[in-house]
Amino acid sequence: MSRVAYVNGNYLDFNKSLIHIEDRGYQFADGVYEVFNVSNSKLVDYDLHLKRLFRSLGELQIKSPISKNTFIYHIENIVRMNIITNGLIYLQITRGVAPRDHKFPKKQKSSIVITGRHSSEDEYENKFKKGIKVSTHEDIRWGRCDIKTISLLPNVLAKQDAHIKGASEAWLINKEGYITEGCASNAWILKKDNTLITHPSNNAILTGITRTSFIKGLKKHSIKFKEAKFKVKDIRNAKEAYATSATQHVTPVIKVDKIRIGNGKPGKFAPTLRDVYMEALQLK
Amino acid sequence: MSRVAYVNGNYLDFNKSLIHIEDRGYQFADGVYEVFNVSNSKLVDYDLHLKRLFRSLGELQIKSPISKNTFIYHIENIVRMNIITNGLIYLQITRGVAPRDHKFPKKQKSSIVITGRHSSEDEYENKFKKGIKVSTHEDIRWGRCDIKTISLLPNVLAKQDAHIKGASEAWLINKEGYITEGCASNAWILKKDNTLITHPSNNAILTGITRTSFIKGLKKHSIKFKEAKFKVKDIRNAKEAYATSATQHVTPVIKVDKIRIGNGKPGKFAPTLRDVYMEALQLK
Repeated sequence: MSRVAYVNGNYLDFNKSLIHIEDRGYQFADGVYEVFNVSNSKLVDYDLHLKRLFRSLGELQIKSPISKNTFIYHIENIVRMNIITNGLIYLQITRGVAPRDHKFPKKQKSSIVITGRHSSEDEYENKFKKGIKVSTHEDIRWGRCDIKTISLLPNVLAKQDAHIKGASEAWLINKEGYITEGCASNAWILKKDNTLITHPSNNAILTGITRTSFIKGLKKHSIKFKEAKFKVKDIRNAKEAYATSATQHVTPVIKVDKIRIGNGKPGKFAPTLRDVYMEALQLK
Repeated sequence: MSRVAYVNGNYLDFNKSLIHIEDRGYQFADGVYEVFNVSNSKLVDYDLHLKRLFRSLGELQIKSPISKNTFIYHIENIVRMNIITNGLIYLQITRGVAPRDHKFPKKQKSSIVITGRHSSEDEYENKFKKGIKVSTHEDIRWGRCDIKTISLLPNVLAKQDAHIKGASEAWLINKEGYITEGCASNAWILKKDNTLITHPSNNAILTGITRTSFIKGLKKHSIKFKEAKFKVKDIRNAKEAYATSATQHVTPVIKVDKIRIGNGKPGKFAPTLRDVYMEALQLK
């Protein structure tokens, strides 16, 4: 069976999954999204993702096109119909189709798209074993990075710039010189005193679901952790560094620009930290 | 004949004009656009719009899907097929369809959409005679407002907020307290000394084509003009105020939040300034 997507009430051949040119997602980036990790055909941290999705919708005053308890039905259908054992679910909701006008249309009929994709566990394992390289970039994003919107152009540009530089993630530096987060992951360092730190949860970052579950695990195991801002000079003094995201879990960072982290190999705490996260996540 | 759109090489029934759900315009706001005014079936300032379009494409490293000299052919077809005497042309180019990944796809096949819409000259005249109300909002947009991208979510939110407040445009105030521009227009005030001012052309604003032609006219007629930043207190002291855009031309602003401009009616220079613009624009 060919790949299947859920689009506005229908299960369609992925290649024939289309939306109208006046969908506000296409003209205004007027929409939100979530990426759910799928592990052994189970959804990772489903409840937290759904909660964040509804927060995003609320912040933009977009009505959910389907009721809260039917999301799981359609998502699980996409997992099953696409026979996804390990992979991800991409879910996008926009304010729908309307004659082009910045202000909200009087009648909103939101659009919804759900797709699935297979991923290779080997690829993740390989990244975990080798660690990843990161480059830094100016954080020129808007003031509401706490909402998971499809307005991702600055992330795209930074990620491409990172790619050109041989890095697989871009860490963003704001005007005050602090690393806010990665383009599609949260940024962490382990300080010399063995305290893990990551940027506080506010408008400057997206509060990652992996970040949330990881913190839960850190607390459970009484691992020293603090929400605190850090700069490039702190990276220079760090023992270890990590990126967390739904698709990357907890991945060790071995280089930031020209700064080698530790001995340039994944840190000794990496397996423990991954285990802490794996234990803390919820499967559905 | 029903409304017709140009989509990736085909002239289609507007209602059946579709793009794929993995178009990067839909998932990443990875695209640019232009709005051309149509006056008596002629395109207003076509060359300037096309020049800006290519600048935007260049800044995002998006390849034009069609050669530079074929834009006019398709745009004029849309004007003719939709029998547009007065109205506008909307043209959007995105980085095209590719499996979702922030970084640029190796092979880019950009998408293009051209649509047309009728507009009412009466509606414009009415706005010109009455003047418009404006509200102010925090400018939380990204750092590259000089590129005309479809990443318009902050503009959407500010415009909706303005609408709720009974205003028809939102003027954006940056962290330093300066008015940068409107959501979809440039902002102007006429100072007590009869100097017209508008925010300088830099990364904080989109250099409007109407702004450019208007300035050309101001210079030709030796009307006192300066690119200079201004704050709310300057609005309070202003004699007149204006919004300029392709669809609004030069429209008098009569109120900004609770500040009444002049005597609360369009200023006495409004007809002259409009004439100056109308004389400066280029028809094709």
